[in-house]
Amino acid sequence: MKAIVVHPPKPGLSLSDVNINSDGARIKILENGICGTDREIVNGELSAASELNGFLVLGHEALGILEENTEHLKKGDLVMPINRRGCGKCLNCMLGRPDFCETGMQVEAGISGMHGFMREYINDDERYLVKVPNIIKDIAIMAQPLADIEKSVEEIINIQKRLYWPCYDGTYSCRDVLITGTGTIGILFAMLLRTYGFNVYMSNKREPTEMEAKIFDEISVNYYNTSNRIDKSFDVIIEASGSSAEVIEKTLPLLKNNGFYGIFGFAKSGALNIDSKLLQSIVYKSITITGLINGQKPHMEMAMNHLIQWKHEFPKTTSMMITEKVPVSNEKRLNEVLSKKEPGEIKVKILW
Amino acid sequence: MKAIVVHPPKPGLSLSDVNINSDGARIKILENGICGTDREIVNGELSAASELNGFLVLGHEALGILEENTEHLKKGDLVMPINRRGCGKCLNCMLGRPDFCETGMQVEAGISGMHGFMREYINDDERYLVKVPNIIKDIAIMAQPLADIEKSVEEIINIQKRLYWPCYDGTYSCRDVLITGTGTIGILFAMLLRTYGFNVYMSNKREPTEMEAKIFDEISVNYYNTSNRIDKSFDVIIEASGSSAEVIEKTLPLLKNNGFYGIFGFAKSGALNIDSKLLQSIVYKSITITGLINGQKPHMEMAMNHLIQWKHEFPKTTSMMITEKVPVSNEKRLNEVLSKKEPGEIKVKILW
Amino acid sequence: MKAIVVHPPKPGLSLSDVNINSDGARIKILENGICGTDREIVNGELSAASELNGFLVLGHEALGILEENTEHLKKGDLVMPINRRGCGKCLNCMLGRPDFCETGMQVEAGISGMHGFMREYINDDERYLVKVPNIIKDIAIMAQPLADIEKSVEEIINIQKRLYWPCYDGTYSCRDVLITGTGTIGILFAMLLRTYGFNVYMSNKREPTEMEAKIFDEISVNYYNTSNRIDKSFDVIIEASGSSAEVIEKTLPLLKNNGFYGIFGFAKSGALNIDSKLLQSIVYKSITITGLINGQKPHMEMAMNHLIQWKHEFPKTTSMMITEKVPVSNEKRLNEVLSKKEPGEIKVKILW
Amino acid sequence: MKAIVVHPPKPGLSLSDVNINSDGARIKILENGICGTDREIVNGELSAASELNGFLVLGHEALGILEENTEHLKKGDLVMPINRRGCGKCLNCMLGRPDFCETGMQVEAGISGMHGFMREYINDDERYLVKVPNIIKDIAIMAQPLADIEKSVEEIINIQKRLYWPCYDGTYSCRDVLITGTGTIGILFAMLLRTYGFNVYMSNKREPTEMEAKIFDEISVNYYNTSNRIDKSFDVIIEASGSSAEVIEKTLPLLKNNGFYGIFGFAKSGALNIDSKLLQSIVYKSITITGLINGQKPHMEMAMNHLIQWKHEFPKTTSMMITEKVPVSNEKRLNEVLSKKEPGEIKVKILW
Repeated sequence: MKAIVVHPPKPGLSLSDVNINSDGARIKILENGICGTDREIVNGELSAASELNGFLVLGHEALGILEENTEHLKKGDLVMPINRRGCGKCLNCMLGRPDFCETGMQVEAGISGMHGFMREYINDDERYLVKVPNIIKDIAIMAQPLADIEKSVEEIINIQKRLYWPCYDGTYSCRDVLITGTGTIGILFAMLLRTYGFNVYMSNKREPTEMEAKIFDEISVNYYNTSNRIDKSFDVIIEASGSSAEVIEKTLPLLKNNGFYGIFGFAKSGALNIDSKLLQSIVYKSITITGLINGQKPHMEMAMNHLIQWKHEFPKTTSMMITEKVPVSNEKRLNEVLSKKEPGEIKVKILW
Repeated sequence: MKAIVVHPPKPGLSLSDVNINSDGARIKILENGICGTDREIVNGELSAASELNGFLVLGHEALGILEENTEHLKKGDLVMPINRRGCGKCLNCMLGRPDFCETGMQVEAGISGMHGFMREYINDDERYLVKVPNIIKDIAIMAQPLADIEKSVEEIINIQKRLYWPCYDGTYSCRDVLITGTGTIGILFAMLLRTYGFNVYMSNKREPTEMEAKIFDEISVNYYNTSNRIDKSFDVIIEASGSSAEVIEKTLPLLKNNGFYGIFGFAKSGALNIDSKLLQSIVYKSITITGLINGQKPHMEMAMNHLIQWKHEFPKTTSMMITEKVPVSNEKRLNEVLSKKEPGEIKVKILW
Repeated sequence: MKAIVVHPPKPGLSLSDVNINSDGARIKILENGICGTDREIVNGELSAASELNGFLVLGHEALGILEENTEHLKKGDLVMPINRRGCGKCLNCMLGRPDFCETGMQVEAGISGMHGFMREYINDDERYLVKVPNIIKDIAIMAQPLADIEKSVEEIINIQKRLYWPCYDGTYSCRDVLITGTGTIGILFAMLLRTYGFNVYMSNKREPTEMEAKIFDEISVNYYNTSNRIDKSFDVIIEASGSSAEVIEKTLPLLKNNGFYGIFGFAKSGALNIDSKLLQSIVYKSITITGLINGQKPHMEMAMNHLIQWKHEFPKTTSMMITEKVPVSNEKRLNEVLSKKEPGEIKVKILW
Repeated sequence: MKAIVVHPPKPGLSLSDVNINSDGARIKILENGICGTDREIVNGELSAASELNGFLVLGHEALGILEENTEHLKKGDLVMPINRRGCGKCLNCMLGRPDFCETGMQVEAGISGMHGFMREYINDDERYLVKVPNIIKDIAIMAQPLADIEKSVEEIINIQKRLYWPCYDGTYSCRDVLITGTGTIGILFAMLLRTYGFNVYMSNKREPTEMEAKIFDEISVNYYNTSNRIDKSFDVIIEASGSSAEVIEKTLPLLKNNGFYGIFGFAKSGALNIDSKLLQSIVYKSITITGLINGQKPHMEMAMNHLIQWKHEFPKTTSMMITEKVPVSNEKRLNEVLSKKEPGEIKVKILW
């Protein structure tokens, strides 16, 4: 079958014929989402990526259609495969939670240990498949990155349970969250935290684009241009601009007592410098700094629920999320979108 | 009455007559413990300290005897007062948990907003008093710092509940903890974490003293001389050497996946530098870094239980904990012990 | 203003002019929902109901429109008032959670201590108001009973956290829930538990009606006619048929190990008889039996989210939920719907 | 080797030579504790008990001495074996928590599926062994029943976490617990709940014995003679008199709002009758009724800590706990103590 093939650590990609045998029900792939990790692999920048017997199929975001019945799913069901699989050794992987793998030997589709989903067919066990309601077929690909955000918000709420964190009315309406970065991840964080009832502020180092302004208005988010000083403090800060050390240094002092600082995404360069005064404040403010990564099946199921809700509640925002669809036959454009993020992009899909 | 009086931010101390009116049952102070914060105030180094109407009574660790009955306590009961009191405004303070004060307006006996306990008498409401069993009268003063450690271990366990953290046998026997620093705080952390069933490793940048070696043997703790390389990874690391940026930089890379890094105590100087690779690892390892501070009444009650247990279980260690007793009448020695920590000191008590 | 007035414990109702002064923003009532408790009061059967200075306005389910701006809400916003208010004395009420009131002195709109919402206007503080999105204006009245179910499912999940309860894939897909009773409450429980990923079974002592069959099909629920024997065991059973002792006796033995039995609603008569063998099984199966009651503001917010989702996901079911709308001017019909539940009714609304 | 052998469901016992092969380190048994379950088997009353290939060694409470080194334990260490082992199939058993076995196929030493510990030697894997500190060798046998109580109190605290349950000072000092029954189980519950800071009340249908009065005084417990009416309400009630339906009926109405009713032990006869008013109160008071059973390794470790503490803190009570020691050679007395509980008995030990 045809597949988008890479050879990490070498840069480049090709649309090639591959032969992959795997067990499980056959699923015809309808479309793939592209994310920054795919581009890092294509550009030869992700050291964690590796071949399996001479090549690697790219892709960890996929929507497909089941071609046979399984125990709980039916032929014709839309499904999305989970992209991370357990190490088979530690308790958390045994419990379906390789996001908390303890050995570091988990496998990641399209990155290491397992071929990705950018191909005509995959075969998979239903335990790794999430059913996708037909009414969100057009935006379902967002469930893959959204699952990571669902997991992240679960982390925040679980960690803050160590103190009394709800407000005087039992909700989170008094809790202020700052999200740095206004890309796909930042917007998904904002939508989810709004749905949980938080006050949400987003920031970037420029004025918002016209599209961003529409989204912020629809989902009721406040905006800071960080070329100006932020004169407000926050209960939660999410670094979603790519884990920039510079951004962390600038915003960590804005946390209130008992504040939570979440780091999402991987810093490419730059060192984080925390002076003794800021280091002291982490202690006397009881601050928690946590790395946020990877949702699993329960989070992807939550993501489906929220996409159904949001498509109804935030029709403008959800309709703007898919910024381009590239047929796999258009090899030239395929190469372009897999190499470089373009301005204004939220999510690009590859159609099979 | 006589009291040990300071005038922050000015250095120095005096044994003076003071007049303090406060409500609540009268308690005759029997002894005070000295900790690093007291010395910082005496040496004019703690900017957080401040006078109340022209002076401040020092001291936040005290053991006293009730001179009258209260609703739940009886004349003659040994008691220990809580040193941090709520801001009266935020929910956590209203719930008896000013360790999670949200306004930062909590008061701290002997530091700011409230006179300390180094005086002949205090008056207090029983809600701020913890009953002390007579059988631990000799070491009860340790309950004050131990309460902070009880709270800290509670934080670790609560935060790690977000994943499946117990071992295959339901205990913590597979979890390795490194405690950096072998002072009072480090030793109390080690005893408590051993009691919870963790494997405990301590480290310092030298060989252990003879006394330390005896303690480590009795409480079954392993030791690392960090002038050598540590070739082991840990589930939890507690920085208990005074929040040295240098120590954090050296040990943070030793954390396993899902690891917890606790920072206890206040850095005096030195900046923490986290390079992009280490910053990345915080994310892909799902690491949590948390500031650990201040126990409250429930933690002081737990501390009493553990001191009763340990006096029976670890008689050598507990008998070595009080390294000096200074009668308040010995002004010269009082000035010395309140100014400077001496080698081999664990806890120095002032006797009234 | 006009109001639906009752004089508990006397039966009967009237549409009368009343004069009620209360603080807060003015809200024009658009519609009220009718529930079984209203009918018990009208029929003189609810001993907990009582007059306030000579009369009581009925009604605890209301949708209104704000007639002035408040701090966080705007004139013209659709809002729903919370029906239970705290005692002002216990910690849980202070924390916005009078569902866990400890004194029993909480007040309930339209039942005791506070006039209900079946009137032209109410005045209220925004802390007791939940914003209602316009897109669910037609079904928003369901958020009031749904909030109780949101709270109930939160109880189940919180109580089961004491063991490891998710399935091998981290979801609840292996957990079987039986809901006894197919009324409004039963159907809302089914929808919510399906949304959380549980397998749901409903039961009644007859074949399902045509409408029920359509609902069960759309929300993927299995059905048992309990005039036959149920040959299956369950992880959770919810008694939602009115807390019938008979139903509890019949279904309690169907619980698996670690099973949760939730009782929702108030038994009118009939004693529950648990023989020694069944009593033993509660112990050796580690069974929990819990009374489920009353959601608060956070649950009403969750209910809004789920109604938005469900209107999109389950259009047939949500469109069938409002089975009748009665203009308040139709006094004859008003008297009928407030006295007696008719076959096939899910929710009846009164329109102002 | 010699062993105490039974043939359930037949009554009777014999001291016989048996041949049992099992893997693991060899442990010389020093002593066994006797509990009510042993007597039910000896009297042919426990239907759950069964032979393994023609006989069953009795006993699930044992203290032994390791005769060889294991990975983490040393020859000469005192150890106590865990009495319940997992089914090998469900997640909770895999996680070392067969107290929450989902299949019901767990095995219980001396009851079903596994020979008991009343024999000269056992062989066992160290994962099922808990190290016993030498200083509590005399009372360590109490750790077996105490582990069940540790688990039970963990259940109470975990279940009550669904609301805000600590008091205004962050402790449990405002929470009142009633323990019905003053046997071993009742006294251990009382000691543990006192240690956690609860107010504890015990009850029995007579005046306390002289020994009981001494214990209640030392551990600060209040007492009710239930032949009189109890005019107090409670946050928690533990039925520890043998799950008597009669006692439950009498005390369930005494629960406060959000109250927890724990049932410990197995009812032998008698049906529990809950009338509609009491059934209603379970709902409107948000009451939870839970079966309490079986501690595992983490609970046995906690039990060791508490026994160390209590031997120091409550020397009278702990010294009265072992009410008789019977050498295994005294077959006549062995038969007597294994058949019938005598007045005043707390714990009887068999010495090998």
